[in-house]
Amino acid sequence: MNVKIPKTTVSRLSIYLRALNRLEEEVETVSSRTLSEIVGFTAAQIRKDLAYFGQFGVPGRGYYITSLKEGIMRILGINKDWSVALVGAGHLGRALMAYKGFKQQHFIISAVFDKDPEKVGKNYLNHKILSMDELPRLVRERKIKIGVVTVPSEEAQNAVNALVNSGVKAILSFAPATVNVPPQVKLNRVDLSIELEGLSYFLTQGKK
Amino acid sequence: MNVKIPKTTVSRLSIYLRALNRLEEEVETVSSRTLSEIVGFTAAQIRKDLAYFGQFGVPGRGYYITSLKEGIMRILGINKDWSVALVGAGHLGRALMAYKGFKQQHFIISAVFDKDPEKVGKNYLNHKILSMDELPRLVRERKIKIGVVTVPSEEAQNAVNALVNSGVKAILSFAPATVNVPPQVKLNRVDLSIELEGLSYFLTQGKK
Repeated sequence: MNVKIPKTTVSRLSIYLRALNRLEEEVETVSSRTLSEIVGFTAAQIRKDLAYFGQFGVPGRGYYITSLKEGIMRILGINKDWSVALVGAGHLGRALMAYKGFKQQHFIISAVFDKDPEKVGKNYLNHKILSMDELPRLVRERKIKIGVVTVPSEEAQNAVNALVNSGVKAILSFAPATVNVPPQVKLNRVDLSIELEGLSYFLTQGKK
Repeated sequence: MNVKIPKTTVSRLSIYLRALNRLEEEVETVSSRTLSEIVGFTAAQIRKDLAYFGQFGVPGRGYYITSLKEGIMRILGINKDWSVALVGAGHLGRALMAYKGFKQQHFIISAVFDKDPEKVGKNYLNHKILSMDELPRLVRERKIKIGVVTVPSEEAQNAVNALVNSGVKAILSFAPATVNVPPQVKLNRVDLSIELEGLSYFLTQGKK
C-alpha cells in the first residue's frame, strides 16, 4: 500500500468506525448514503475515502459492516492492543487515566510518569505513578511505542525528549507549546482552544 | 461575507494565529512561504485560506503580522471575551478549569455545574461548583452562549439539553457519546481516541 492517504481521510475512518460500531448491533450492511446521514460527510466522500483501501462495498447492497469494520481497524492498526506511556499525572493526566474511550479503541495506558516527588509512588485510578528516572527502562522493557504528554508547557520538550530517547515513535501532546521531534517520530498535538474557536467563529459568522 | 468557508480552513486559521503570535515578537511581516515552514501547510494553501477574507498580503513583502492577526481574531470572533459554562466537575472538567490556553484565547469559564451533591458548593481551582438547578438562571443572567460538557457518556444528553434549553448556542462535548442538538445549535465533539488512532495508523503504515 504505497498510495499517500490524506490525514483528513484517516480521521474520517475513525469516525466511520464509531458509526459502524453502533450500526453493527442492528443491521448487517450499510449504504454509503445511510452512513452519510449518520456521520455528516457526503456519500461521495465516504466512497472516495474507502476506495483508498480497495473494494469493501457490494453493488446494490452497500458495505458489509463487520468486514468494513475489520478493514478499517486493520488499517488504523487498532486490531491489536497498544501500550501507551503517559507523562504527567496532573488533572488532565488523571482525566485520561479515567477515560474509557482509550481502552475501547485498544490503547492501554501501561505506565504513568511524573517528575513531582509528591506524586511518585502514589496510586491514581489503579496506576502507580512512576519516577521519570524509571521511564527509559520501562519504555524499553514494555516495548512502548506511543507516548501521551500532559505536562505544563515549560516541561513539554523535556517529556518529549525522554520518550523519544527511550524509543517512543509517536507522541500525542496536550501541552499548549511547540515541541520538536526528530523526523522519524510522529507528533500530534491536541489544542483544546482550537475547538472552542470553531464555536466562536460559528457564533460570530452565524455559519455551521 | 456570504462565502461558505470550509471547516478545515477555520481550524487552519487558528493554527496560523498561534504561529503569528510567536512571530510577532521578532518580525513585522511574514511571507506565506515562511508561514508554511512553521505550520506545515503549503504556501498555496495558506494563500488560498487567507484569500477567503480579502487582501491581507502586500506583494513582495508578505503579510503584516499585526493586521493579519487582528483580521483572523475578528473572523474567529476572539477579539472579545466569551463566557463559557462548564458542565461536569470531574477530572476532565478540573483539567479544563486549570487549562491556561482557554483564557489566552478569550474563553473565560464563568460558571461550573455538576449534578453530584458531593461536589456542589465545593471550590475547585477558584470555581465554586454550582447545582444543575442553578444552570438555567445563571446561563441567562450571564448571557452565556458557549457550553463545554465533560460529564460521563450516559449524562451527556441531559447536560446538553440543560444548556440548549437555557439559551446556549454552541457546545463542545468531550463525552464519547452521540448527542443530539436542535439544528440552530452548533455541536463540536472532541474524541480523544481519534488522535491516538492517527498515531497507530502512522506506526502501522509507516507514514507521517
